[in-house]
Amino acid sequence: MMKKIFQYIDDHRDEYLSLLKEFCAQPSISTTHTGIEEMVRMVSETMRSVNVEPEIIPTAGNPMLYGELKGTGKRVLGFYNHYDVQPPEPLDEWKSDPFKPEIRDGKMYARGVSDNKGSLLARICAVDAWQKVYGQLPLNLRFVYEGEEEVGSPHLAWFAETYPEKIKTDGFIWEGGERYIDGPLQISLGVKGMCYLELRVRTAAMDAHSKHAAIIPNPAWRLVHALSTMKDRNDKILIENFYDKMDKVTGQDREYLRNLYYNEESIKNRMQIGSFINNLTGIDLLEKLLYEPTCNIAGIHSGYTGQGSKTVLPCTASVKMDIRLIPQQDPEEIAELVRKHLRKHGFEDIEVVQLSGMHPFRTNPDNPLAQTAFACAEEVYGIKPAIYRNAPGTTAMYRFCHKQNLPVLMFGVSNEASQNHAPNENIYVEDYFQGIKMITAVLKKFAGF
Amino acid sequence: MMKKIFQYIDDHRDEYLSLLKEFCAQPSISTTHTGIEEMVRMVSETMRSVNVEPEIIPTAGNPMLYGELKGTGKRVLGFYNHYDVQPPEPLDEWKSDPFKPEIRDGKMYARGVSDNKGSLLARICAVDAWQKVYGQLPLNLRFVYEGEEEVGSPHLAWFAETYPEKIKTDGFIWEGGERYIDGPLQISLGVKGMCYLELRVRTAAMDAHSKHAAIIPNPAWRLVHALSTMKDRNDKILIENFYDKMDKVTGQDREYLRNLYYNEESIKNRMQIGSFINNLTGIDLLEKLLYEPTCNIAGIHSGYTGQGSKTVLPCTASVKMDIRLIPQQDPEEIAELVRKHLRKHGFEDIEVVQLSGMHPFRTNPDNPLAQTAFACAEEVYGIKPAIYRNAPGTTAMYRFCHKQNLPVLMFGVSNEASQNHAPNENIYVEDYFQGIKMITAVLKKFAGF
Repeated sequence: MMKKIFQYIDDHRDEYLSLLKEFCAQPSISTTHTGIEEMVRMVSETMRSVNVEPEIIPTAGNPMLYGELKGTGKRVLGFYNHYDVQPPEPLDEWKSDPFKPEIRDGKMYARGVSDNKGSLLARICAVDAWQKVYGQLPLNLRFVYEGEEEVGSPHLAWFAETYPEKIKTDGFIWEGGERYIDGPLQISLGVKGMCYLELRVRTAAMDAHSKHAAIIPNPAWRLVHALSTMKDRNDKILIENFYDKMDKVTGQDREYLRNLYYNEESIKNRMQIGSFINNLTGIDLLEKLLYEPTCNIAGIHSGYTGQGSKTVLPCTASVKMDIRLIPQQDPEEIAELVRKHLRKHGFEDIEVVQLSGMHPFRTNPDNPLAQTAFACAEEVYGIKPAIYRNAPGTTAMYRFCHKQNLPVLMFGVSNEASQNHAPNENIYVEDYFQGIKMITAVLKKFAGF
Repeated sequence: MMKKIFQYIDDHRDEYLSLLKEFCAQPSISTTHTGIEEMVRMVSETMRSVNVEPEIIPTAGNPMLYGELKGTGKRVLGFYNHYDVQPPEPLDEWKSDPFKPEIRDGKMYARGVSDNKGSLLARICAVDAWQKVYGQLPLNLRFVYEGEEEVGSPHLAWFAETYPEKIKTDGFIWEGGERYIDGPLQISLGVKGMCYLELRVRTAAMDAHSKHAAIIPNPAWRLVHALSTMKDRNDKILIENFYDKMDKVTGQDREYLRNLYYNEESIKNRMQIGSFINNLTGIDLLEKLLYEPTCNIAGIHSGYTGQGSKTVLPCTASVKMDIRLIPQQDPEEIAELVRKHLRKHGFEDIEVVQLSGMHPFRTNPDNPLAQTAFACAEEVYGIKPAIYRNAPGTTAMYRFCHKQNLPVLMFGVSNEASQNHAPNENIYVEDYFQGIKMITAVLKKFAGF
């Protein structure tokens, strides 16, 4: 049966590619509010082209779009995507205009082609192909599109809470998802959480001449000493009770790692690093990457940091830390553990401000949608998928899914070198067509599971 | 005998104050090369007015001025001053125009009035008064004026080495020097040295998404861990052999501290600090301030430090450290000790760049010029001077003095609240006149010592 629809997709490559070009030619930059209205109109028209009546849901920011499609079966599948993109800067590093999609060596280059207009359209095109080949869908669909993913999804939790019936499904296919170049599709079952903190210390009302440094406290030294109590040189996090609530890594979790490809040499070469933290390699490296939390210094600042020298004793210092979490770590609790830790170590003068928090989220791999996707990926790509118990990054998945405990999967049409958020963002054209086929396979299999 | 000349000075207050106003009304900002030529002309004319023929000595930067005056006696006394000033910014914090000197409540406000046109002119006026009252000076004078003190005196060492005969004297009175408000004159016999370092670490070729933080090294953490080995929380410097070459604090050194005023409460209030480092007070506080080296973080930077949050794993981090030295600590040796320390602690990846170095310098308090100044200060100000074995700050004194081991003293017409380098720079008009008298007293006493 899939043969017929796969043939239809192959016969309509030009049409589906034109649609992708059109989408990518339309800027839709949420940070700068560029082209949002035009993009919403384009998405609406495209939804209508597959018989989905778009409902435009205003928010305090950019509107969301929602649509439903009734099928013959009972199963309900949701698609979550976003129509906004990152700003294209730095422009001079692009080999072609970020908003004039260009195909070179089998790849389409454009801002948003990977993140995530390619995946958004692969799902639409799959529905189109199904309708053209078989008519009505075999299951019910829900389309949820937001326009603020690149600015932190500020209204996604609100949407999920305000319209629980709109997201009530048997599972969602999320945005994101890569394929290894010449390798299997990656399917992620979750994400790490995030506790983003800023630690601030002020030691005096004003900066002073550094000749006073012998007797007036220095905030940068305070911060250095405080931070040195929070993580050791072997990357072990020393915040008391930090690791207590983490789900244990199971045998199955580790088993998944065996099927992941991670080209250590290529990453070391590209980043020009001699070795990974603690000289880890292989399964141990992947276990740390995926199953361990982080405590990253994203930024630190105090005093004079321009050219040359200035002999100043600063009065303030601050550090930005993003702490990625593993289920069941809770961002608010982690922030409180940091506060408690600092107090215990005599740093009660250091203020801890939580800038954002996202819970980690994982879907049970035994649920029908996950099992469906695993089987379809092998069928479509001819090789068992690489299953990520969770991706190393973070999305607002928990806010959307946790109340109804929705199963959720991440897979799509990007690859390891898709350059999301960076110049020369791209996808393989072939991955786009494969992605359309993958969705049609899921539609069929999930309907009859 | 001093009565007559003091009377002359009092009778010519308007004239001497007009000259100071004229000097301060002429901008002479070395950083921006503003008004340098005009200032050099003004200084030259003023030198001529006291029968000193100015020799303008070009440098790669702003010219220096040199002059001699022959006296009846054998002693030779030098005056070192600079004619350049700091930029006046931030302008909106000035209560009057920085280059329109204004007298309010007994103080003259202007950029450079304290640092150091007031002291420069007090010396000229003293010579003028002497000549008007007695004719020829009782000793020989050397005038050395530079125009780059505010940008680090890049040509002062060159001057001293190129013209050793010009600085061959029985001692120099340096720029700088304050008087306690309603208290004694401060006389400093030296300065701390300075080793200014930048520690830099790069852990990868480029920044990465912070989702990689579990496995790719973070340069800010490297720096935090390295720094935490260099100084403990009680402000003890842990760099191996750091304290080895310091001159011991003698009983006399500590004795000097007893005569210093240090209004701890006023400083704590102004800076809004609860206590000084290690809760020090009294003599112990002064001993740390003046007789101990520092290891200050003047600036630290890595990653994203703007508003809000960014989830980045930075690839570089750096810290600027100014380390103030006590005789016989050597800036080059200290830089090498830091390198050795980092290597020993496993931080060979941290690059140590020395941005500048100045040796500490101290004059023996038993030398005739120092003894002269101590006696004159008591006579003129009516109270024993506060003697600083060394000031807590740093100047290029060593470069100028060490080859000939010139005795050097710092005293002048500023006060504790003179706001050098800051808005509303000022001196007490009365301190200016006292400063003129003090110099005439030194001329007399040093000639006959």
